[in-house]
Formats: sequence, C-alpha cells, structure tokens
Amino acid sequence: MLQFMPPNIDIPIVRDVLEESHKRALENRQLLNKHHIFAVNLMSSPGSGKTTLLEKTIPLIHAQNLRCAIIEGDIATTLDSQRLKPLGAPVVQANTQPFGGDCHIGAHLVQAALKFLNLEKVDILFIENVGNLVCPAEFYLGEDLRIVMLSVVEGEDKPLKYPLMFRECNACILTKMDLLPFSGTDIANLRRNLLNINGKLATLELSARTEDGLENWIDWLLQQRTASL
Amino acid sequence: MLQFMPPNIDIPIVRDVLEESHKRALENRQLLNKHHIFAVNLMSSPGSGKTTLLEKTIPLIHAQNLRCAIIEGDIATTLDSQRLKPLGAPVVQANTQPFGGDCHIGAHLVQAALKFLNLEKVDILFIENVGNLVCPAEFYLGEDLRIVMLSVVEGEDKPLKYPLMFRECNACILTKMDLLPFSGTDIANLRRNLLNINGKLATLELSARTEDGLENWIDWLLQQRTASL
Repeated sequence: MLQFMPPNIDIPIVRDVLEESHKRALENRQLLNKHHIFAVNLMSSPGSGKTTLLEKTIPLIHAQNLRCAIIEGDIATTLDSQRLKPLGAPVVQANTQPFGGDCHIGAHLVQAALKFLNLEKVDILFIENVGNLVCPAEFYLGEDLRIVMLSVVEGEDKPLKYPLMFRECNACILTKMDLLPFSGTDIANLRRNLLNINGKLATLELSARTEDGLENWIDWLLQQRTASL
Repeated sequence: MLQFMPPNIDIPIVRDVLEESHKRALENRQLLNKHHIFAVNLMSSPGSGKTTLLEKTIPLIHAQNLRCAIIEGDIATTLDSQRLKPLGAPVVQANTQPFGGDCHIGAHLVQAALKFLNLEKVDILFIENVGNLVCPAEFYLGEDLRIVMLSVVEGEDKPLKYPLMFRECNACILTKMDLLPFSGTDIANLRRNLLNINGKLATLELSARTEDGLENWIDWLLQQRTASL
C-alpha cells in the first residue's frame, strides 16, 4: 500500500513510517502482555461477517467467565459499535476518517483506543479491522492472533489473488457456509488454495447465522489463548 | 490510503505522489481521447463479480460491432486474464505485486498497459481494478466512467461505511441479485443508503449468473458512451 511511490520519491521516508508503526505495535504488545490480554486482529473484505461473528462470539466467551473488549475499526460511522454495544463488552470505536479515511487500523489508533479501556478487566481483546483484504495485512498492531475471514461467496480464487493476507495470518475462517450451495464456489478447491498459499494456516468453517461451526471456533480460540499464557 | 503518515512526515511528499499520479492520468485521458476510446474503471471488494460481469458483457458489446479491450488489475496471478482471454478481446494483465503488492491500479500502470494495445482497434476499454472498496477510489486513471460494484451479500451498510468509493463513482452495480433471498440484506435500505451517500449515483441491479438485468446494464453503458462522443 505504502509502496505506491514513483521512483523519484525517497524510499527512506516509507521506511520511517513502517518503523514508527512497528514501534507503536511493540508498545501495544508490552501493554497487552502486562495485563495478560489475548488480542485478536480480525481482517477481511467488507461484508464477510466480522461484526456478525463477534455478535455470536462474545456471549459464548462471557459464558466461560472471560471478559471481552472490542476495538471497532471503520472508516466512517459507528454502525458496528452500535450493533456490538448491547453485548455488554466495552467497545471503542476507532474511525480512520479523521485521519484521511485510512484503509486499515494503524498501531497508533490501537494505542489511542487502549487508553479508553480498563485493561485490568479484559481477558480477550478483539480488534475488528477496516474491511479490506489487502492493506491491513501489512500492519502489525501488537496482536497475538491474526485471523482472515473469507465469505465463501467471494469465490475460491481469493487466497491466490490476495496472497499476502493469507500468508500473514495464523488462521482463516470461512464464513457464510450456509450460502455455499448457492455460491458456485468449489470448496475443495478453496481449501486447496488456502493451503497452497500458507501450509501452516489453520482453517475453520462456520455460518454465524445458522451457528454451525461456532462451537468449534470458540474451542479453537480459547485453546490459542491458553497456549499463549 | 496515502494519508497514513505520522505528523512528523512532510506532507508535500504525499502531494507530489498524488500530483504525479494525476499527471499520468491526464496523459492517459489525452491518449484515450485521441483514439475515441470510452474507458470504464470497475471497482469493488474482492469477489463481487467484476470478472464474471466482464465475461457476460464483452460478447454483448461485440454483438453491437464495438471492439473491447481489458486491462486486468490484480496483485498476483493471471487467473482473471485467463478467464477473459477466450472472449476475443485483447487483455493486458497489470500485476501490482512487482511494485510491492499495490492495493489499487495506478495511472502509471494503466499508462504502461496501454502500450500493449492497438488503440486504433478499441472502442471501449474496461479497467478491472484490484478488489478493494477503499483505496482505488482515490486514484483517477483517466477513465470516462467510474463504477463501483457491490454484491448484495455484502450487506446494506456498505455505502455508509465506505463512503468515498460511493461518492467518487458515477454508478453502482448491485450484483449477485439471485442471492438476495438468502442474503439477509434489506434491499430497500441498501438503495436508500446509496442515494444518501451520493444522490447522483446511477444504480443498476443484476445477476450475471441468471443474466437478469444484464440487457439493462448494456443499454445503459452504451448510452453513456454515446453521450460522451
């Protein structure tokens, strides 16, 4: 994303930006470590169901006596925060529009958002990134887990066409599995493409609407948290 | 996108990049004008059906004795070009990966791609942008028409959450209308949101799979071309 620079532009400036971003991400990491917070960065195209998955996930984690918080990244609006607020977990809206409509959450925004949370009372932090299958992959925020969500309706070729995102993530959640029969997507081919791009990628499949696969996702997530403690 | 700059970075450098980009776009515009080519920039999230729409559109335009060409923008792979090649229109693949995996097509890439086409033999040029609902909106390429495609499965809130794209386009094509009954999307609300963001936005609705709405799209497109001559 930042590489859109004609040859006459000084490359060190791009490096400065990335270094500054990484420095802030490491500060976030330290702060999260200090409070034993497990942080999950959720990334995907617009409309793959990030907010819907959180709506279903938060109550199930609360039921395990673990406390959640959410940093909700959007370019504009507080629509997603409004959807998540009733779940009882603290939500901080991080809008990128005042910063020019950034296409991803930056580590500086997460740093600012963390100040609004009582970190003593958070076990799992979800960061819902801006809907974009490209740019967010480039920015480490200080998270433990990077998850890409892909709606099966988007088609089986996406891991090949947007490889960085799938290489940079620990897991891929295939969403809207209830729409698979209508989607024209070859799921076997999609699974193959995911593993061809990243052989270490954990793959989960679910439908937040029908709740098929939801329990499996929660189990997996909590295992990841336990392993990190 | 380019606005991700900490405050200590010199703003004029960002301006240089945008000015350089705009200069190249105007050069593209001049070249296209000289050859009476009508250029359409197709933008959307990944998986909204840009390539599928082109597969259905090109033969119908050829049937009107108009000659098409395609600049196919992807980060990686030639998958889409391979799908489009059999249609008989010249296709130039513009991969952004050698340039760091850019999240959009830049005017410089279009400029380079145009050199591979025999412009004397092109009436309508389609530029299929990288799948991204954010960044491509910021870059003028020299096109006549900017179209955003939105799969109805992505949900009715997208125009509000990604406003720049919908403000910067002349038209929105709602795709995958055959999936509407399964999508949970409130189409009336989606139509309202589109007009609230951009009252001048032309809206078309179609399913490339069932071909419902396809004829209407072709008629509209050819009217736009005629009006521009």
